[in-house]
Amino acid sequence: MNLILLEAAEISISGDVTLDDARGVHLTRVLKVGAGQQIRVGLLDGAIGTGTVTDVRDRGVTLRCEFNAPRPSRPRVDLLLALPRPKVMRRLWPQLAAIGVGQIILTNAERVERDYFDTHVLSAETYGPLLIEGLQQARDTRLPIVSVHRRFKVLVEDDLDGLFGGVRLVGDPQSEARVASALVDANRDQRVLVAIGPEGGWNDFELRLLQAHGFQAVGMGPRTLRTDTACVALLSAIHDAISRV
Amino acid sequence: MNLILLEAAEISISGDVTLDDARGVHLTRVLKVGAGQQIRVGLLDGAIGTGTVTDVRDRGVTLRCEFNAPRPSRPRVDLLLALPRPKVMRRLWPQLAAIGVGQIILTNAERVERDYFDTHVLSAETYGPLLIEGLQQARDTRLPIVSVHRRFKVLVEDDLDGLFGGVRLVGDPQSEARVASALVDANRDQRVLVAIGPEGGWNDFELRLLQAHGFQAVGMGPRTLRTDTACVALLSAIHDAISRV
Repeated sequence: MNLILLEAAEISISGDVTLDDARGVHLTRVLKVGAGQQIRVGLLDGAIGTGTVTDVRDRGVTLRCEFNAPRPSRPRVDLLLALPRPKVMRRLWPQLAAIGVGQIILTNAERVERDYFDTHVLSAETYGPLLIEGLQQARDTRLPIVSVHRRFKVLVEDDLDGLFGGVRLVGDPQSEARVASALVDANRDQRVLVAIGPEGGWNDFELRLLQAHGFQAVGMGPRTLRTDTACVALLSAIHDAISRV
Repeated sequence: MNLILLEAAEISISGDVTLDDARGVHLTRVLKVGAGQQIRVGLLDGAIGTGTVTDVRDRGVTLRCEFNAPRPSRPRVDLLLALPRPKVMRRLWPQLAAIGVGQIILTNAERVERDYFDTHVLSAETYGPLLIEGLQQARDTRLPIVSVHRRFKVLVEDDLDGLFGGVRLVGDPQSEARVASALVDANRDQRVLVAIGPEGGWNDFELRLLQAHGFQAVGMGPRTLRTDTACVALLSAIHDAISRV
């Protein structure tokens, strides 16, 4: 935890908040804070600031908070992901929030098992805390927007233009094009959306449909990676490329 | 599993191998192979080839193998890693082998807990199968060389020149330099070693010692990542950069 995320409703009018949950335990047991110490705090989807420790008890800490740094801008990269199996998706949530994505669009594909959609790993009660874990790691406050689309064709043909405007990429092991060259002409204001397929890849129909809707294929070298490894690798390559634009 | 890895001792003189372990189960249950079908096989640390299914039973499969493609070259990227906690290290082994590393040099640092070194996640019996899992994912046969060095200063001052020759990078969140620009002058034959610190980072002494021994600092953008996410992100950025050289 490199920043403690707070919800507005937790904070009193004078700026005080008492933490006796995992955050409080982290402050007392791991960071071993003492009265007067200052720690970095953030408001969920809001500004960043400083919390001064005013009281420490066995399992809890009281902070007086001041939010004096602006709200971070939303990460410029979005992800369209064919739903991986629940164990992999659970592992991905905090990593996606840490690397930085503006929205996470989950969808179906031929090689996605139907029952993946019936899992609690897609409920906000499960993924909310996992996303927050990633934001606290990366010192961000902006919760990615999550949407689930069971019909791939409807998503790509009808819904996607409303969800996203910008440069569209699709990860394709067959492609020789690299992320950096695909984004050479992107400008500073454009968002980038990357589509990542299921284990086993998009089928031909899916790949053609994506390409017909403006998705440009990019490769990741000759090695086939697991979905979660591929997500981290591609998203960080995109961040790297647009930070140089 | 995109390739089935075999050890030379498993294969008869005529090229036959019978698999009744996890590999056999994968072939029958997941890939649902039938007699006559061809699958990709590799020899651990050796050549790549084709296995033709000659017999299928409930839990086992017999293949006749022919190794007709050359041994893959060793990945040109090496990793020097401050030992993370066991749960993270266990998750990293297959991902490191999949992304492709020639050697994995594990070491101590001030912010590494002492008891991390006493865990079975550092025994070859544990990490061997996890590395093989990653190789089978990425269709590689070259097992990374693993070494464990409890004394950081001795490693950097005395042992490292014997282990590695090439370009040296160290991940440093404070640095503005990007991987791609740091490797602009690397040539096709050079290996790249990247040092990644513990959660909380290298301390000042460690960072200075690394820089005094030729490690050039590279940043990863403004976000602080978990060790395993940072490893995947940095290693894939390096592979991306050297594939363009």
